[in-house]
Amino acid sequence: MEIRQPYLLFLGDAPDDLAAKTARGVWQWRPQACVGQFRLEGCATSLQLPDLTLAEARERGAKTLLIGVANRGGVIPDSWRVPLVQALELGMDIASGLHTRLSGIEVIRSAAERTGCSLHEVRHPEGPFPVATGAPRPGRRLLTVGTDCSVGKMYTALALERELRGRGIAADFRATGQTGILIAGSGVAIDAVVADFISGATEELCPANDAEHWDLVEGQGSLFHASFAGVSLGLLHGAQPEALVLCHEPTRTHMRGLPHQSLPGLKECMDANLAAASLVSPEVRFVGVAINTSGLDPKSAETILAETEAELALPCVDPLRQGVDRIVDGMI
Amino acid sequence: MEIRQPYLLFLGDAPDDLAAKTARGVWQWRPQACVGQFRLEGCATSLQLPDLTLAEARERGAKTLLIGVANRGGVIPDSWRVPLVQALELGMDIASGLHTRLSGIEVIRSAAERTGCSLHEVRHPEGPFPVATGAPRPGRRLLTVGTDCSVGKMYTALALERELRGRGIAADFRATGQTGILIAGSGVAIDAVVADFISGATEELCPANDAEHWDLVEGQGSLFHASFAGVSLGLLHGAQPEALVLCHEPTRTHMRGLPHQSLPGLKECMDANLAAASLVSPEVRFVGVAINTSGLDPKSAETILAETEAELALPCVDPLRQGVDRIVDGMI
Repeated sequence: MEIRQPYLLFLGDAPDDLAAKTARGVWQWRPQACVGQFRLEGCATSLQLPDLTLAEARERGAKTLLIGVANRGGVIPDSWRVPLVQALELGMDIASGLHTRLSGIEVIRSAAERTGCSLHEVRHPEGPFPVATGAPRPGRRLLTVGTDCSVGKMYTALALERELRGRGIAADFRATGQTGILIAGSGVAIDAVVADFISGATEELCPANDAEHWDLVEGQGSLFHASFAGVSLGLLHGAQPEALVLCHEPTRTHMRGLPHQSLPGLKECMDANLAAASLVSPEVRFVGVAINTSGLDPKSAETILAETEAELALPCVDPLRQGVDRIVDGMI
Repeated sequence: MEIRQPYLLFLGDAPDDLAAKTARGVWQWRPQACVGQFRLEGCATSLQLPDLTLAEARERGAKTLLIGVANRGGVIPDSWRVPLVQALELGMDIASGLHTRLSGIEVIRSAAERTGCSLHEVRHPEGPFPVATGAPRPGRRLLTVGTDCSVGKMYTALALERELRGRGIAADFRATGQTGILIAGSGVAIDAVVADFISGATEELCPANDAEHWDLVEGQGSLFHASFAGVSLGLLHGAQPEALVLCHEPTRTHMRGLPHQSLPGLKECMDANLAAASLVSPEVRFVGVAINTSGLDPKSAETILAETEAELALPCVDPLRQGVDRIVDGMI
């Protein structure tokens, strides 16, 4: 499944900036893939991209209308139907990371059939996927792992891709969640795959490659998250990484969604990931720590980065503030 | 989903004993739930149950025709269609652990609709399942874990259920695979659940219970199997076990299906399971080791049991040969 670029970013009637987080992520990481934005009446956010009509977007080469807005409950409001059908009729595919299926809405499904355009529903992996073999394969691979969910694993993997490419090194971000897939134009929503195929789908996502090529695999969840650790472990085994980056959000007081559960220590989390990964990658090692310091004042951020770096003897950065070049120095 | 008992065991045209393994398991563990067997021409195996016509089985109270035979590729041959439709028309449900869906065969699907009888396709969990909370819940729970796949985890859990019930202790086997589900009449094929819900489906399978009630949860896979470890970890967290039994098959030369991968040491496997389980069950402990010695001569079997018991300081038995009473002694 390859989502054709460039995109027209559909912001719909997003009530605030946060609702358009997906569009913002795509624009931030793949600006060259965005020809413009499309907004409905009442939309309260903007990406500083040109507002285009559907026809104008098509003229400027847009191949896919990307739904970059998340609604409460993931529903698709009636007001979207006319523009979505029109986009299909103009020859654009539609890509969506929403739970609700576009193909479940009759007018959209039939318009896609009539026009031959594709509906990419990235939260609903298509398969079939193979069972993992765990057999060693060539190519270099790094996985971002976390102390918790939503701590910057996608951001860090994308930052590493950008830094490696900037140095002229072949590298691909490999997306395992819906926003990442829309950014990359391909990938698999690993938490939506049938349990037996978590590792197999991951092996397919980052297959054997040139010996010097890097895959930067987007991690999911945490080995210490009681709801999703199975996904994290299957992803770890399928990715067969030689390198890991630990991602952490230091202001978290408990595991996301689990008020009774505290976060693991960084060292404890690293040891568990190394032990599990060594099953398929005996030489696996950590090459850095990415700390999301957005919730801290600059002085506290500086302190925690310095202290963590001293404690773990690894480059320790906030990718957004310091970049990841020091981590990349230790990878290559 | 509750499969109504008693069963008529459908052996079809099973070419040998092994093909009727599922029927044999149901008959072994739930003999009171089996009114008879139904065989087609060419069937080369028998359970020493009465051969009944469909009408006779109905008269003896059979509520469900249970497909107890596995075909190569899990297909449903044309020769089964007439008896399966007839069973539905006589008012029996049908339960199947095959990959191929009964509901994908038009004459069977329409007969089920017409008669209002159920098709239980236990390899295709119905859901929706909740996301796991990992919150502590009352009741006593034991999970069987393995060094590898297919080492006796279902058999051991069933033997523990039988021993506990024999002592008058409330206990339920909780099935996580298709054969186990057909034996228990309920359960969830955990490896067929969407990855995000492995632990949540398991929490639902063995929910809060009376403080002294035991759930014996059937394990799946192994933390050391590179294809399926994610399933095993999600199951471990969802089961929230206070007690574990390690299951092992000592003649295995490599992990099942993975010729390049060796088996873990028993102690290594126990430590990994304890570390992972402690996230949701801080007091978790091993209460025994179940070794499948069917591939060994009696003297070698005796030696390995004695050596393992001395090494691990836990009751170490072949459940089939010695029973599990010594393990149960240490549980209660």
